[in-house]
Amino acid sequence: MFKKVCIIGCGLIGSSIARAIRKNHLSNIIVSSNRSDSVNKKVIELKIVDDSSSDTKKMAEGSDLIIIATPLSSYEDIISKIKDSLKSGTILTDVGSVKENIISLIEKDVPTNVSWIPSHPIAGTEESGPEAGFSELFENRWCILTPSKKAKDKDVKLLESFWKKIGSKVDIMEAKQHDYILSITSHIPHLIAYNIVNTTLNIQDQKESDIVKYSAGGLRDFTRIAASNVIMWRDVFINNKKNTSKMIDKFIENLEALKKAIENEDGKKLEEIFTRTKKIRKAIVEAGQDVGKPDFGRK
Amino acid sequence: MFKKVCIIGCGLIGSSIARAIRKNHLSNIIVSSNRSDSVNKKVIELKIVDDSSSDTKKMAEGSDLIIIATPLSSYEDIISKIKDSLKSGTILTDVGSVKENIISLIEKDVPTNVSWIPSHPIAGTEESGPEAGFSELFENRWCILTPSKKAKDKDVKLLESFWKKIGSKVDIMEAKQHDYILSITSHIPHLIAYNIVNTTLNIQDQKESDIVKYSAGGLRDFTRIAASNVIMWRDVFINNKKNTSKMIDKFIENLEALKKAIENEDGKKLEEIFTRTKKIRKAIVEAGQDVGKPDFGRK
Repeated sequence: MFKKVCIIGCGLIGSSIARAIRKNHLSNIIVSSNRSDSVNKKVIELKIVDDSSSDTKKMAEGSDLIIIATPLSSYEDIISKIKDSLKSGTILTDVGSVKENIISLIEKDVPTNVSWIPSHPIAGTEESGPEAGFSELFENRWCILTPSKKAKDKDVKLLESFWKKIGSKVDIMEAKQHDYILSITSHIPHLIAYNIVNTTLNIQDQKESDIVKYSAGGLRDFTRIAASNVIMWRDVFINNKKNTSKMIDKFIENLEALKKAIENEDGKKLEEIFTRTKKIRKAIVEAGQDVGKPDFGRK
Repeated sequence: MFKKVCIIGCGLIGSSIARAIRKNHLSNIIVSSNRSDSVNKKVIELKIVDDSSSDTKKMAEGSDLIIIATPLSSYEDIISKIKDSLKSGTILTDVGSVKENIISLIEKDVPTNVSWIPSHPIAGTEESGPEAGFSELFENRWCILTPSKKAKDKDVKLLESFWKKIGSKVDIMEAKQHDYILSITSHIPHLIAYNIVNTTLNIQDQKESDIVKYSAGGLRDFTRIAASNVIMWRDVFINNKKNTSKMIDKFIENLEALKKAIENEDGKKLEEIFTRTKKIRKAIVEAGQDVGKPDFGRK
């Protein structure tokens, strides 16, 4: 499919893509670039890539497909390093969770003979780093493409085909729409998880050991998400701050209404709401977007 | 251990207890009482219990151990039915998630020769009903006892030993303390999960099918908890409304602070908070209160 693929940032997502490329024979050569020399050494040792170096420009040179898989705050630095060495016909993509502002940020630096097509694979775990990756991560998950206006149609089709070959289902949409819907299904859930765990830790009169002991009552579910990559999520919230703020307001408005119903012992209203929320779980499991086993199949 | 155990309400928890009693040979006879005749029929068919009927008084008669495993709102009705047929020396317990108000509610009706010792096994799944139960549900989970003042010490020890025999670890504490700590580790997480899913469903300009499609970005974790038993949770929030209200206020206060940090692009503050919340996950896994596998070991 490609002669050379360069992955910038071989963390959980980047290393999973590299593994999936290798497994599915989608490129002759796979290289990566990481700021840390120990990571560059590690990904060669683990045979995840053929070559890896902190010299991003050198690694990117001659690649047919370049995938940026680093936190959003590093994009500006990366594009400044690689922009003058992009060969004609290269597809440039990323895997970031926010799209609208990074599209224009990179578009202005990309030559017209390069197709800049942001991707967002909706997949991941709470772990980080190249050792946490695995080739099946994208199987049966959605990947959203938000092509820049200058991207060539044939390249969009090629990138779509790439994601499908590593197991994903692909949707194409406007960046603005992406940022809105993902704020609902991903960004706010993460922020709420961070907030509930933080609220718990802020309670001064309660020992942390008791919180840990009784966490199986529900809290433990949130602690998984609240253990996600710190820098990545810091950047997501800041880069999608308008949607995030708007959704926080809606969340608080609804929570205040629930609080009022509880204080008024309005059982009927609570029942109505809880019955609605129960239904969506079934739809998610039926759509193959979560396991159907109780308790996520925990053992 | 017992000659006759009666379980009032053979749902997820009740039927799991019945299965665990049978598996561990802890009673000669196990009976249950359910309002619905189809459930009474089902639990006999499934050989979960030896006998079952909607006649709660009859089922409870002569039992050494009676376990109320129904939603909190049914306790008053149940105690009125069984109070005159409790034999001397019986241990009466429950499995409810709120303790302070139900202790006094039942205490006033219980004869002095009966030990009323509320239990709260911190275990469960999002499923409901007798078919969802399994005998290992309580293994390695905490069970909190909040004995009433009139309960005999030897009976508290016997009940403690019972929970341990079906796999639980046991803590004994004041009902007030129980209701406070569980509001943090269980009730608020459930309410927040219900609220985030409800907020999502309230967004008029977004199709439910898109929410379902992209739910693997984080939302799906919350939909599991928000699929829990509607009536049980309605009763929990209403019965623990003071703690719930107080904790909602703290949650909103912290969420407003996070919102401000995002709006001000205060990356340092976000990093600080997310780094703290990451740590607690490790402690929970180390304490055996959750699986250590990424993504709950979902497959």
